[in-house]
Order: sequence, then C-alpha cells, then structure tokens
Amino acid sequence: MELKQHVRSIPDFPKPGIMFRDITPMLKSPLVMKHVIHSLAEPFREMGVTTVVAAEARGFVFGAPLAMELHAAFVPVRKPGKLPFQTHTFNYDLEYGSDALQIHQDAVEKGDRVLLVDDLLATGGTVEACRQLSEQVGADVVGAAFVIELTFLNGRSRLGNIPVESLIQYATESPDE
Amino acid sequence: MELKQHVRSIPDFPKPGIMFRDITPMLKSPLVMKHVIHSLAEPFREMGVTTVVAAEARGFVFGAPLAMELHAAFVPVRKPGKLPFQTHTFNYDLEYGSDALQIHQDAVEKGDRVLLVDDLLATGGTVEACRQLSEQVGADVVGAAFVIELTFLNGRSRLGNIPVESLIQYATESPDE
Repeated sequence: MELKQHVRSIPDFPKPGIMFRDITPMLKSPLVMKHVIHSLAEPFREMGVTTVVAAEARGFVFGAPLAMELHAAFVPVRKPGKLPFQTHTFNYDLEYGSDALQIHQDAVEKGDRVLLVDDLLATGGTVEACRQLSEQVGADVVGAAFVIELTFLNGRSRLGNIPVESLIQYATESPDE
Repeated sequence: MELKQHVRSIPDFPKPGIMFRDITPMLKSPLVMKHVIHSLAEPFREMGVTTVVAAEARGFVFGAPLAMELHAAFVPVRKPGKLPFQTHTFNYDLEYGSDALQIHQDAVEKGDRVLLVDDLLATGGTVEACRQLSEQVGADVVGAAFVIELTFLNGRSRLGNIPVESLIQYATESPDE
C-alpha cells in the first residue's frame, strides 16, 4: 500500500516555509487505518509491550487503536491542566518560549514496557517529553513508532538507542515528495 | 462487565463543586477498551454509518477505534488553528465566554451518515457543535454515542430526535454513584 498518497501536503502551515503533512485523508479510509495500525504494531509484537504512551491530540488517534492491537494499556500525555489526578510534568523549550506535558503519576510504573507513538516525528520534542515522563516513574521505553518521519530534522537522534520505526519518510519540505 | 469500576471520580476538578469522571483507568485495560468500543458500536451497526465524527482530545481516543470497528471514516473536529486545510467553524457560548470548533470542509459530504462520539455527554455543547458542523455540509447525523452520560445535565435534549446511547450514567455529582 502506497501510504504517501493518503497524506496531503499543505504549504505554509502553521507558518510560512513549513510544509504541513496532513494525515486526515488517511483517517477517512478504514482500510488504510487498519493497515497503518497493523504496520505500527508489527516491529514491536515480540517486545512485550505493556503500555502505549501518546501525546494529545493526534497521537491519540493512533495510540488508542495501537494499544488495542498490542493488547496493551493506553496512557495519554496531555497539556497542563487537562489530567485530573496527580501528575508529573516535563517542561521543554520551543523555538520561541517553552511548553509542558503531563502524565498521571499512576499511569505507568516500574517494570512496564512502553511503546511511544505519534503521528509525526519532527524535531522530537514531544516524543522526548513522553520518554522522560515514562522513564521518570521507572518504566522501560522499548521503542517509538511514527506514521510520518521528517528525516531532515533528525528527531530520532534524541531517542538514543531505542528502536525507532516510521511508516513514511520525507527528506525535504518539497510538495512533490 | 461493570464499567463504572473503571471510572475514577475526582472531586473539585476542574473547579470546586464539579465531580470529574476520569476515564483513564478504563484506557489502561485493553479488555475493557475492546468491550467499550464494541458496546459503542453495537446500537449503530445496522444504520449504515459511513463516518465517525469526534472532537479533540478525549473524543479521539474512542472515535478512532470506533470508526475502525464500524469500517467507517474517522473525522476529527478540532480547536481553531489546528486543522491545516479549509475549515468550517462553529462558535458556541460557554458559562463564561465562548469557544469554537472546526471541521475540514472536505471531511464530510452530502449523503454521509454520521455517528457522533465522545467520552462524555454533559451539557451537550461539544456534541452540538459536532452535529452542526456535520449537517452544515449536508451529512445526515444518524446517532450519538457516549461512554458516560451525566443525566442530570440533560445534554441529550440538545440532540433532538436522533438516537443517543451511553454506556454509563451518573444521575448526581456524588462520589458514591
């Protein structure tokens, strides 16, 4: 299946010079979605994944079905103020300013084997936050799975030596890719 | 399966007097999630659903697997500025101030049969926005499915005569319910 044909490239979003890779066409096809979830799971089926961790909001679209596919727990990571129970917080720098993500303190525990998932691996800030939040409570992060990877941003360098898989790669900001 | 035991009641969140019904324990059990998604789909299996529409962020957790279960398209509704393509916007009033939600203009079309889904039916503002956004482009909204319904807020009255189903009901703000 040629997955790239289900991604729409939108220039200058969210700001000039950025080529946004829009996965909403992919979501409109249940056959494509089944293929995507199956493919995200495949490299990790024998790794004893107990928990899938994903950040809001697009991460939830793939994280929830992937957790079900792997018979694992689904743990949401959210912006501050959204999770109602006690949380851990990870603060990180953006190009301008900073941001933070939170996880419930009882969501992941020592001994859990965590697979991180998101729609997009760009600079890797979000997935790094998810990794830190998971490891902070003693879990082992056994891998990271992405639908799309922007290889020219080299986000996977932030993930050290854990296995990183992506289904689609873009090497440039070109709309023709 | 007694689903209520997988919901955690947290008093005074997000503000004093509100009993927040936290579905994150439910997400931690893949068996419970499979049961939830199956149960959300069940009343609508013979209704020719082509499209599942859900609002960010918790709506995505149930909407994406439900769309796959019903072999339907998944269409995300988001806060302004998040969807990259042309959008329709629905503005609505909150207790203090107002809010808005958007849908891609090409996400739903005339003839589509839409099932709305969310984790929670409270006053019904979010689902009403999703309904209006779907109908604005000519789709038929054939039903709405919720994991939790706060019956004392009577949100289903905003949905007119379309079928509304919920898996768990709370009639009060009591933590003992």
